[in-house]
Amino acid sequence: MITNNDTICAVATRPGGALCIVRVSGPDAIRITDSIFRSASRRTLADSHAGTVIFGHISDAQGQIVDEVLVSLFRAPHSYTGQDSTEISCHGSAYILEQVCRLLIEAGCRQAGPGEFTERAFLAGKLDLSQAEAVADLIASGNRATHRIAMSQLKGHFSSELSVLREQLLQLTSLLELELDFADHEELEFADRTELLSLAKRADSRITELARSFKTGQALKQGIPVAIVGRTNVGKSTLLNRLVKEDRAIVSDIHGTTRDTIEDTIQIKGVTFRFIDTAGIRQTADTIEQIGISRTFAAIDKALIVIWMLDSQPAADDIKEMESHLEGKKLILAFNKSDLNSYSAFDASVLKLPADNTKAIEISAKFNKNITKLEDLIYEMADIPEINADTVIVTQARHYEALNRAHTNLTRVIEGLNSTLPGDLIAEDLRLVLQDLAEITGGAITPGETLQNIFSHFCIGK
Amino acid sequence: MITNNDTICAVATRPGGALCIVRVSGPDAIRITDSIFRSASRRTLADSHAGTVIFGHISDAQGQIVDEVLVSLFRAPHSYTGQDSTEISCHGSAYILEQVCRLLIEAGCRQAGPGEFTERAFLAGKLDLSQAEAVADLIASGNRATHRIAMSQLKGHFSSELSVLREQLLQLTSLLELELDFADHEELEFADRTELLSLAKRADSRITELARSFKTGQALKQGIPVAIVGRTNVGKSTLLNRLVKEDRAIVSDIHGTTRDTIEDTIQIKGVTFRFIDTAGIRQTADTIEQIGISRTFAAIDKALIVIWMLDSQPAADDIKEMESHLEGKKLILAFNKSDLNSYSAFDASVLKLPADNTKAIEISAKFNKNITKLEDLIYEMADIPEINADTVIVTQARHYEALNRAHTNLTRVIEGLNSTLPGDLIAEDLRLVLQDLAEITGGAITPGETLQNIFSHFCIGK
Repeated sequence: MITNNDTICAVATRPGGALCIVRVSGPDAIRITDSIFRSASRRTLADSHAGTVIFGHISDAQGQIVDEVLVSLFRAPHSYTGQDSTEISCHGSAYILEQVCRLLIEAGCRQAGPGEFTERAFLAGKLDLSQAEAVADLIASGNRATHRIAMSQLKGHFSSELSVLREQLLQLTSLLELELDFADHEELEFADRTELLSLAKRADSRITELARSFKTGQALKQGIPVAIVGRTNVGKSTLLNRLVKEDRAIVSDIHGTTRDTIEDTIQIKGVTFRFIDTAGIRQTADTIEQIGISRTFAAIDKALIVIWMLDSQPAADDIKEMESHLEGKKLILAFNKSDLNSYSAFDASVLKLPADNTKAIEISAKFNKNITKLEDLIYEMADIPEINADTVIVTQARHYEALNRAHTNLTRVIEGLNSTLPGDLIAEDLRLVLQDLAEITGGAITPGETLQNIFSHFCIGK
Repeated sequence: MITNNDTICAVATRPGGALCIVRVSGPDAIRITDSIFRSASRRTLADSHAGTVIFGHISDAQGQIVDEVLVSLFRAPHSYTGQDSTEISCHGSAYILEQVCRLLIEAGCRQAGPGEFTERAFLAGKLDLSQAEAVADLIASGNRATHRIAMSQLKGHFSSELSVLREQLLQLTSLLELELDFADHEELEFADRTELLSLAKRADSRITELARSFKTGQALKQGIPVAIVGRTNVGKSTLLNRLVKEDRAIVSDIHGTTRDTIEDTIQIKGVTFRFIDTAGIRQTADTIEQIGISRTFAAIDKALIVIWMLDSQPAADDIKEMESHLEGKKLILAFNKSDLNSYSAFDASVLKLPADNTKAIEISAKFNKNITKLEDLIYEMADIPEINADTVIVTQARHYEALNRAHTNLTRVIEGLNSTLPGDLIAEDLRLVLQDLAEITGGAITPGETLQNIFSHFCIGK
């Protein structure tokens, strides 16, 4: 059961900073906030203009001051949720937040669940469902690429694409109904379905394209997986430190960013690349002659790009073993210690990989030689589409699944059009396609369960 | 060098929540924010009313939208810092915060140092120095006691006390000058110094009292140290879990609170008690007959309250050994497993401690018997003064040191008044006392170094 006629509250910032925001939304938001707030001017929020920010203090029932705060006042429908809302900006003490929330709840608020403010924005028609999901992606975005995709989705570019598809499919439905009318009049046994087929195929092609973009979307969200492999002492750690170092410095400018989450990732041109642990090769290197260690190959299996570091010409056996793991991968042969060695004799074409999938570069991790060139090469091999403010890339599994269902149903439509299947049966499948697409934006009636599932992945206070 | 005529910016919330606030303050705050912000209504901030909150978006130089935001607008002198200020409420993505700060800095802002907004509030005369320090204490406050003390200090109750002391000392100075005038006229060799002495002693008594409160202030801030000692299997862990459990549940209501920081602390009536690790006794218990283990005694040494858990009558040797470590401590004899044992025969008075400092209680940690009574006893033994909205308790080492210096100088004044020391030499010492006290509120000219030292302990964005 989705209800939005009660008043909810939640801490919308992470506790522990100088300031924190407590959000209140619902029909009683202003009355409830007024009951614990005294403005410095003694004017109540109820008597204040919407869109103003008012200084005062929060007190408890005993008149003890809990905090000096700023309250921002919003009135329906001109707020994020479309409801009367307040935002209380207080000091970031856990104790103060606890007290403010307690007082709000005692005065009639309910503690909001994850994403409940955005859910209300959706229910109020401020955002469609895919835009609402973009809000969570926007908050989670850690680099330019994921930020742009989320912003594009929030701005409704994905919704527009779906709306264009919907128009095409509705046109198809109309043509099909026209055919049915003719069939009724028995003037034609089989209509000419060329135009219908062309329309259906065009829509299916775009749906397939969108579904395919999910792989890119996932890689961009999680970081494009890169494995650095090679023998002990070839310089893997030095290279990783070299690649990671500069980026860390930038991220750590923001106070409180957890180091763990940026461990072994780098940003190249606004895209995150994630290095997969291949430490195994170091620990047991003295017992092996081959590069083949299961952990390393497991890392290769997970990677999109493999950097094979070498400091000497690899043996034919090494090459053979490596080849067997590189299907569908991009390989960079990184000849390290270029200050010491010459690799001019090595020919990358001996590897049985398409030339497009294999590049070679001489570097010196220690002396920082060609590292920028290596980064450019990593970026180039990742083959990332240009991401602009209106680029549509599918990032949610829910959307991907809906698109796949739409594709399956549309394939049946196309098969039907190619056969002698009666128009009314085809129209049935077509309705399913429209429903699949409508599920993405929530245009159809969305079951409460689906909403709950979507918003439960949000943080509290959003 | 303290400058406040440039424009500063900083993230004022902890990154990672749904929302974050970026603060901007300084003469160019409005112009700089306008340069990266477009309001939905197209009206600039410069043309908007102070005290309004305006929806719009932040864009970069290429016109790419960085985020949809709310900007709160404040104009000098009606802002926290007393300067033109904006607060940008954006989504809590690290990437977005990085971009917003970068854009502000490129447009002419300087990244604020720790506490720099509050420092500007001090320089603008919005707060005195002790009130400014209370802001940091308020943000750090984790329980009712520290919250109330910080709020009392922020509200100026400590400053008022100091102002009363200043009045008394100025009166003393006047009387001393009067005596000097008399001395000039050689009508009296020694003035009657009864009133002067009484005034000086009264002031000194209050100063000493304030300085003494620092011990309580420190204990409240860090948590009052409690050691639970006793032999293996007497039930120490069960008791600790029993005490800690309920409190944890409350604290973890707030999303994102770090568990580590609440490890082994409990709140009783709004005061934090901190349990000192006495794990040592468990690990080596099988090798000893006596409770005496150095780690346990080290824990006792650090504790204010010692809970000695027993499940049988302690041997005379045990009692003797324990006694030698309990000077100045409060001892609670907790007879555990009260469901199994009877302790009626034990007489707490055999311990050579003042009765006030020793209490006995029968409990069952396992069956939750008398645990609330034990908590009441812990609270009672801690002997915490009642803390109201106007209670003054010194919490800053800086204030404590200034009060101690004032006491030392005032002691010299009193000695001088008791001797035949000439009034002008006494007046010299009196001036030092006034200066010591003025340092606390920053009423005297405060060296830049002192300010830097104070505000460097603040978080960024405050």
